[in-house]
Amino acid sequence: MKLVLGLFFDREYLKGRHFDEGLSGYIWGFRSIWTRNILRLAPPCRFPANHQATISNSDRIEFHPDDLNNFQSPGTYLQNFAGNIRLGHGTYIAPNVGIITANHDPANLNQHIEAKDVIIGESCWVGMNSIVLPGVTLGPRTIVGAGSVVTKSFPEGQCVIAGNPARVIKNLNESRNTS
Amino acid sequence: MKLVLGLFFDREYLKGRHFDEGLSGYIWGFRSIWTRNILRLAPPCRFPANHQATISNSDRIEFHPDDLNNFQSPGTYLQNFAGNIRLGHGTYIAPNVGIITANHDPANLNQHIEAKDVIIGESCWVGMNSIVLPGVTLGPRTIVGAGSVVTKSFPEGQCVIAGNPARVIKNLNESRNTS
Amino acid sequence: MKLVLGLFFDREYLKGRHFDEGLSGYIWGFRSIWTRNILRLAPPCRFPANHQATISNSDRIEFHPDDLNNFQSPGTYLQNFAGNIRLGHGTYIAPNVGIITANHDPANLNQHIEAKDVIIGESCWVGMNSIVLPGVTLGPRTIVGAGSVVTKSFPEGQCVIAGNPARVIKNLNESRNTS
Repeated sequence: MKLVLGLFFDREYLKGRHFDEGLSGYIWGFRSIWTRNILRLAPPCRFPANHQATISNSDRIEFHPDDLNNFQSPGTYLQNFAGNIRLGHGTYIAPNVGIITANHDPANLNQHIEAKDVIIGESCWVGMNSIVLPGVTLGPRTIVGAGSVVTKSFPEGQCVIAGNPARVIKNLNESRNTS
Repeated sequence: MKLVLGLFFDREYLKGRHFDEGLSGYIWGFRSIWTRNILRLAPPCRFPANHQATISNSDRIEFHPDDLNNFQSPGTYLQNFAGNIRLGHGTYIAPNVGIITANHDPANLNQHIEAKDVIIGESCWVGMNSIVLPGVTLGPRTIVGAGSVVTKSFPEGQCVIAGNPARVIKNLNESRNTS
Repeated sequence: MKLVLGLFFDREYLKGRHFDEGLSGYIWGFRSIWTRNILRLAPPCRFPANHQATISNSDRIEFHPDDLNNFQSPGTYLQNFAGNIRLGHGTYIAPNVGIITANHDPANLNQHIEAKDVIIGESCWVGMNSIVLPGVTLGPRTIVGAGSVVTKSFPEGQCVIAGNPARVIKNLNESRNTS
């Protein structure tokens, strides 16, 4: 089956836990071929992706193949036509999450201002309906509560952030020390 | 037509106002067969559902067939693979709403912590892009404003809640008494 | 190609920058015919629209053909079965945005209260996952931050609004004067 998938996807993504433990990687692969390459409900992608996930440029996103699950959620919008998105290993992205690298230019909305990369560390979790804005860096083990708008960086990680704009609501370092 | 639908769906859902008043129930049924059972854009479901509605486990949701409309909205995410969701009669769920029963474990995001049921009473309305978190109970006639994040229970009902986290912004009991 | 598109769409929308500069208008047109008119993933529409964009009534929305891009985003919900939505020229609507013209009646959720038009001026930008509620008027060059809930009008325009409920967080007039 991997030989068939290899005709449609980059081989570097056809490995990891979703192919070694169970069949989910294969199911996602054939579903992506069916919905994207054959039915053309969305453009074909370098890796298996739900047709309801919108990825501006699949060349500009960096992630570990263990985390293919993040692209099987519906409603996500990874706006990276001009900037890069990097997701650390073990990070989870929930449905309807937006990660934006380039805003419209307020002085002329038909243009975009310079893109800024978004870097999300290892073992983070971005809750449903949240948005991460251009230039944000989240350190390892940052948990973004559902419905948050992340306007600035939290590079130290190890915390729960939530709200609009997102603020630290819990420090996970301390709870780890005491456990 | 109900005989055909009965081959694909549980008969207990093929009744109520959407089948007795107009044809919407039939239209949703055939659309669900076409998009889910035939085109396989999403997994088949026990009841008619839009292919853009994500329901982790259609066995773990309890609702009245009069409220089939709630599963025809796009972008909803009913995460109930381990917990149950109960929707009271006459309750409305808007597009892009998330109802979550099991969070990731902050200590190991690859696992989930124990699920907690979400119970939404009769004649509630959960506004667009809102999220209801694990363990929440909403009493009858709770209105959740658009874009809210419901982090705790409001079992008394009869109120409008809104915001992130959601708080009571209006008591509907009083306005009913004075009208 | 326009002759073919003219069989499916109103000709008044088959013009403007997306047809004059590049091929995007044609691509959106044929994709809309494929996903809506042929595959029936969503109802056919008077103008090219992504099948993941939900438009209650395409007769009740007014916009310039240059802005066809706004209907190619996934997850938008333009609820205008009873009220009208007017979008000014050069306005951008991001993914998962809701524009609502008629709320449910709190006293009887099975009914809607009277619809109120939503009017968004020229060169506005409504950020991802935001919601604009019934009766709202936004003046020209209003920027609505991602994840906002716009509950009241900002008819003067020239500002950035954000939050739930949305408030003015920046005045764009002054920055224009000093630049």
